[in-house]
Amino acid sequence: MHAVVIDQESLRVDERPTPSPTPGQVLVATAYAGLNAADLLQRRGHYPSPPGWPADIPGMEFSGRIVAVGADVDPGWIDRRVCAIVGSGAQATHVLVPAAHLLMVPESIELRDAGGFAEAFLTAFDALVIQGELREGQRVLVSGASGGVGTAAVQIAALYGAHVTAVTRDGTHDAALRDLGAHEVIRVADVATLEPVDVVLELVGAAHLSIVQDRLAPFARVVVIGVAGGGSRTEINLLNIMRTRARLTGSTLRSRSHDEKAHLSERVRAELLGPWARGELRVPVAATFALDEVDQAYTYFAQPGKFGKVLLEMPDASS
Amino acid sequence: MHAVVIDQESLRVDERPTPSPTPGQVLVATAYAGLNAADLLQRRGHYPSPPGWPADIPGMEFSGRIVAVGADVDPGWIDRRVCAIVGSGAQATHVLVPAAHLLMVPESIELRDAGGFAEAFLTAFDALVIQGELREGQRVLVSGASGGVGTAAVQIAALYGAHVTAVTRDGTHDAALRDLGAHEVIRVADVATLEPVDVVLELVGAAHLSIVQDRLAPFARVVVIGVAGGGSRTEINLLNIMRTRARLTGSTLRSRSHDEKAHLSERVRAELLGPWARGELRVPVAATFALDEVDQAYTYFAQPGKFGKVLLEMPDASS
Repeated sequence: MHAVVIDQESLRVDERPTPSPTPGQVLVATAYAGLNAADLLQRRGHYPSPPGWPADIPGMEFSGRIVAVGADVDPGWIDRRVCAIVGSGAQATHVLVPAAHLLMVPESIELRDAGGFAEAFLTAFDALVIQGELREGQRVLVSGASGGVGTAAVQIAALYGAHVTAVTRDGTHDAALRDLGAHEVIRVADVATLEPVDVVLELVGAAHLSIVQDRLAPFARVVVIGVAGGGSRTEINLLNIMRTRARLTGSTLRSRSHDEKAHLSERVRAELLGPWARGELRVPVAATFALDEVDQAYTYFAQPGKFGKVLLEMPDASS
Repeated sequence: MHAVVIDQESLRVDERPTPSPTPGQVLVATAYAGLNAADLLQRRGHYPSPPGWPADIPGMEFSGRIVAVGADVDPGWIDRRVCAIVGSGAQATHVLVPAAHLLMVPESIELRDAGGFAEAFLTAFDALVIQGELREGQRVLVSGASGGVGTAAVQIAALYGAHVTAVTRDGTHDAALRDLGAHEVIRVADVATLEPVDVVLELVGAAHLSIVQDRLAPFARVVVIGVAGGGSRTEINLLNIMRTRARLTGSTLRSRSHDEKAHLSERVRAELLGPWARGELRVPVAATFALDEVDQAYTYFAQPGKFGKVLLEMPDASS
């Protein structure tokens, strides 16, 4: 197989032996692999792959077709179109993944869009619905709303009947975010004028959170899943937390156990695949690069101002 | 009745009409009333009584005997020994309280100790067991462990089978805290050497929390219920929250709804009254002052270094 390989902070496409699935795993011929902020950190040596995953091949999500199955996995699954998150290794023509983590790609969806679905939608679903306990009619604030997780979060929140406020750096993507279901799209300076919010999905970090903490409704849930650009340290007013009985929490998906990822995938299968098949959820794609353009893809991804996902297309990709 | 009255930040004992219970309420002839940090704030005009409670009579907990009942309340309850939290008004010879908030004082317990039970034990139970989801075998850190809530928290955590670390300002009360169930008693500077903790009960505030946040176990719960002395603003490391998936929350009891207080009282009745009756929980009393010594009582309460509760004794108090 061919894989993106990190070598001393540079990226190249190299040949590697194609692995074989062990019991419970499938081998997927990758069609598309998404880029994520974690890939940039990993390239610089700051965010190593979790144990059991390829140490030098980046990539945390993919779409493709199953080409081989391990013991315990129904051989009838071969040739099925799937997508999933992985600990690493997705930016390659082949990837091993536990069958329990697979999402079946609906027939109505192209593999290109599916390549950018899993990381963004599992992350946003976990943060909003599971950690954030989002309920119909509640007010949600999504910071960094233009990115992959942000655009997924806006759609999921709207699907669950929330009032969705999206926060972005400038007005470039306001119309696109409204089109995804945002009821209002604002700049961070406007947060101070908001009605109190029930759930905050914090993708930007400290600079944003320091303002948002004064706009929390009683029992608000603040879920921090990214600090891109906004810094990682912020001053919290504890009296404010006591008064509102707010809850501040955070997480990453990557380091979770096999079982936790399986459980989350099961929830997403049950609650999001139907809406996705019906076109009620979609994956905005900012740009697609060929595998051998991986350097350009990472450079493009690192720049602000794009809308939605950045994808790598494998040589044999077909929808 | 006689009541402590706040008048322009000074305290005096004044005569007031004795109120009559409305449906669902009882009138209690108070025996003892506890002092709490909120009383000092209220005296300075910073923490007004919640709506529906006496605006100028302080006191959030008491013990005594029921002397009259409103419609809907069993007249057989008259003369029963009870204690409870109230929104305000407990520092008086008589107090009205919803029957749903009453705790029956076990026969083996004196009314003096019962006067300091409700606020401390309801607060600590709510914070550790309900908000903190404390489980047997977990590690608990209690800051400000020598005060009313702190001494209650140490005992509840030990009762639930946790490993309890108490943090106090100096070594004066180390032996007494071990006697209540603390497995170790340390200074804040020693927190940096602790094994990671599962539940933090934060009674001191920012100065303490800024150190504790680096000693959190995966899925740790940090519950802030006081900022006495430690400041209310602290810098939080969001990457740390994401990595540990910790949860920071906080609350006060006083502003809660009737139903919430009733539900909490019901849990405490079911889970703590038995251990209290058997001597497995107790109320350390730092000092007791007569009602007309209320000024001295507040002055004594405001000083650091005491251990346990400070109580006001009513003229007709009997155990």
